Amino acid sequence: MANDIKSPGSSVQVLAPATVANLVCGFDVLGMALQQPQDVMTVRLTEKPGIFIQKDDVYNLPVEPEKNVAGASLLALMEEWKAPVGFEVSIDKRIKPGSGLGSSAASSAGAVVAANHLLGSPFTKEDLVRFAMNGEKVASGVKHADNIAPCIYGGITLIRSIFPLDIVQLTAPPMYVTVVHPQIEVRTSDARQILRKEVQLKAAIKQWGNIAGLVTGFLKNDYDLIGRSLEDVIIEPVRSILIPGFDDVKKRSKDAGALGGGISGSGPSIFMLSKEEYVAKGVEDVMIDVYTRLGIEFKTYVTMINYEGAKCIIS
Amino acid sequence: MANDIKSPGSSVQVLAPATVANLVCGFDVLGMALQQPQDVMTVRLTEKPGIFIQKDDVYNLPVEPEKNVAGASLLALMEEWKAPVGFEVSIDKRIKPGSGLGSSAASSAGAVVAANHLLGSPFTKEDLVRFAMNGEKVASGVKHADNIAPCIYGGITLIRSIFPLDIVQLTAPPMYVTVVHPQIEVRTSDARQILRKEVQLKAAIKQWGNIAGLVTGFLKNDYDLIGRSLEDVIIEPVRSILIPGFDDVKKRSKDAGALGGGISGSGPSIFMLSKEEYVAKGVEDVMIDVYTRLGIEFKTYVTMINYEGAKCIIS
Repeated sequence: MANDIKSPGSSVQVLAPATVANLVCGFDVLGMALQQPQDVMTVRLTEKPGIFIQKDDVYNLPVEPEKNVAGASLLALMEEWKAPVGFEVSIDKRIKPGSGLGSSAASSAGAVVAANHLLGSPFTKEDLVRFAMNGEKVASGVKHADNIAPCIYGGITLIRSIFPLDIVQLTAPPMYVTVVHPQIEVRTSDARQILRKEVQLKAAIKQWGNIAGLVTGFLKNDYDLIGRSLEDVIIEPVRSILIPGFDDVKKRSKDAGALGGGISGSGPSIFMLSKEEYVAKGVEDVMIDVYTRLGIEFKTYVTMINYEGAKCIIS
Repeated sequence: MANDIKSPGSSVQVLAPATVANLVCGFDVLGMALQQPQDVMTVRLTEKPGIFIQKDDVYNLPVEPEKNVAGASLLALMEEWKAPVGFEVSIDKRIKPGSGLGSSAASSAGAVVAANHLLGSPFTKEDLVRFAMNGEKVASGVKHADNIAPCIYGGITLIRSIFPLDIVQLTAPPMYVTVVHPQIEVRTSDARQILRKEVQLKAAIKQWGNIAGLVTGFLKNDYDLIGRSLEDVIIEPVRSILIPGFDDVKKRSKDAGALGGGISGSGPSIFMLSKEEYVAKGVEDVMIDVYTRLGIEFKTYVTMINYEGAKCIIS
């Protein structure tokens, strides 16, 4: 619903959730928003046209709009808005860059959700995804939407197609999500480069059987089917090598009752889905144990699916 | 529910439906049963142990049990039944062999459904699929289940995995199916051999986006999404070359209002899905026109999804 544009000086605060891309067998097409962690962004309409990114002292992210993911997304939005307009952006980054939890997507999505609100909501969610994909291009060189779409729509989303953009919202039964972020660096661009450009037809068939099973499990609230379908025979065997402790976490989490899980996005974070909260907490114990033994610093979350997506909290 | 075994001499008649395997983007994992055409099979319990296939005068199919698809399926069933038992099988073959409409699957599935009935129903549907897959091995050299499963379960089925067998039944909104069988020969084994063993990861991603979209469209009764997802970037471009008139039928059927469609199984039959019956009949007109102009003999069907699967009608 379009409203009036806010007056210069107005600002809005947005919560932009972390997201898990791929969901094991849905490489590049599935994504899920989490209740925790979330970035907190403040965007202000300025008198002066342009994009003004406030420097952050923790991660030293670039402040030039075209090199900053939030900036690049806002540039795309402004190009369609056409009238001169200015935004000042400051980000309290709680989703660590390089965690595999959609940190860049949260900044990109949060920025355009905030800007849209300040402009009186002229754009649709699909428009906002298109704009925010420009931020992903800056972050990883590829205009993918498997973090952006769930960050903006909430819940679990399927990107059936990128060109033309076709976003499908999926329902799912209540599930707990346990996440561990081992603090090692895996760059998205590196994680993409180690993938083979060709895959065995046999493996691809297994993969599309699994993604069809996973989607069916979500839509039919069939936890067992979800668990059986959380299998990735193409990407995980290659990428998991970059993540110490991966096999251990996965095996022991399933022994602890998790439905299944795998690499979050391009890693290094690992996520596990559970039907019950006590299982999700047991999975957290497993993760803590594995990384404590390995002597690798880490952070864990026990959370649920976020069905709201990025949202304005103060305006 | 297990009952008593019937007495020797008892017989049963079974209708075994044609099936459309693959459903465009679900190569080797999706299949759908049709209301027309159906094979009519009669199976009789004999005093003498063994399998006795009656010769058919039309197609001259082999009568040695291990070379006959119904026979091979019954052999697998008898191996698990253990006690000595004998079956006489006669098939009124209305699904033409080599049509791409699951002719061998109908014979295999129909035989074990009939035998199971005569034995007092000791086996589950999943058991019957396992037995009937032996018939597919005889027919094409591969133990696939994408025709067998819908033929036995009815409706639309997903084979999430073959080993171990994992069959998932899908729901779908009412749809009409128009089928044309151009009477040219495409052998399943040939149609398999022309496929490349490796596929581009990019193409595979497109395919699993589409199968996830198709399954979501079925389960959410979203006709538009079904239509958008009926796209195959891997198998169809290669196999459709073997089917004269394919591109023409597809393009003109969609112009006539069909949701979409493609090759049925490994061809040469082509199927199209429509929301309304008058559209499905318009699609039939398109098919008739294309093959009349090409001077190729053909047969068409306008039918619906069969939700019962192979069923006993007289016993």
